[in-house]
Amino acid sequence: MKKNGRLVLETVEGQGLRFRAETDTNHTFILDSGADARAPSPIDALLAAVGACSGMDVISILRKKRQAVTGYTIELNGVRRDEHPRSFTHIETVHQVRGRGLDRHAIEDAVRLSETRYCAVHATVAPGVALSSRIEVEQEGS
Amino acid sequence: MKKNGRLVLETVEGQGLRFRAETDTNHTFILDSGADARAPSPIDALLAAVGACSGMDVISILRKKRQAVTGYTIELNGVRRDEHPRSFTHIETVHQVRGRGLDRHAIEDAVRLSETRYCAVHATVAPGVALSSRIEVEQEGS
Repeated sequence: MKKNGRLVLETVEGQGLRFRAETDTNHTFILDSGADARAPSPIDALLAAVGACSGMDVISILRKKRQAVTGYTIELNGVRRDEHPRSFTHIETVHQVRGRGLDRHAIEDAVRLSETRYCAVHATVAPGVALSSRIEVEQEGS
Repeated sequence: MKKNGRLVLETVEGQGLRFRAETDTNHTFILDSGADARAPSPIDALLAAVGACSGMDVISILRKKRQAVTGYTIELNGVRRDEHPRSFTHIETVHQVRGRGLDRHAIEDAVRLSETRYCAVHATVAPGVALSSRIEVEQEGS
């Protein structure tokens, strides 16, 4: 099986819950769920992974379609179980795309392609979570 | 629905695929899948989330059980589909716990409790991925 990463507990002493993650491409980042967390939690990372994975597909497709995007923000809204385990039951991804002369259908197509064909994170979590998405288009003067 | 975070595309111009993620607790981090990525990818973040979520449970439980842990590393091994979407089909989590006079059963209990009861990321992805784990215990002289 391919080794994809490792995590090292940085807070062996005390009560901290901070891990340093090292990817197989030599990027490092911190995940922290301690009392005074200095970094995102694993739940934050999961949610961001869902949004960014799809967002990377969408912007790539919109560039190929020659859409003049000038700004792109993704809002993530999640619902979790009240009881343990506090897994996500629903994640909504809101794609807020700003640009000049944007074709709304092109954006809808891009989001659909990501969600049905390309986004590996989406496909990994889809069996366990209700995933939905919305698009907000803001046209700029040209 | 609770707003849990947002992502802002930092590479609107050019071909970059870098998003800045902002959590609802005001932590920021970067996800990047571009050609010269300077940060982990969404897939890296997902994998690290699985490992760190479980690891935080395990170390918390081991502290409560008064286990003298001196080091804790988690290795993550993933298998992904060859075809799109390249979702994970299997993720193995290897808990490498070092310490003095460690009780292997206590570690096994902690991992089991995390996987069946506490770890929200594990529970979120479990319906779609074969999740397995192993434990490696390294006893130190006291």
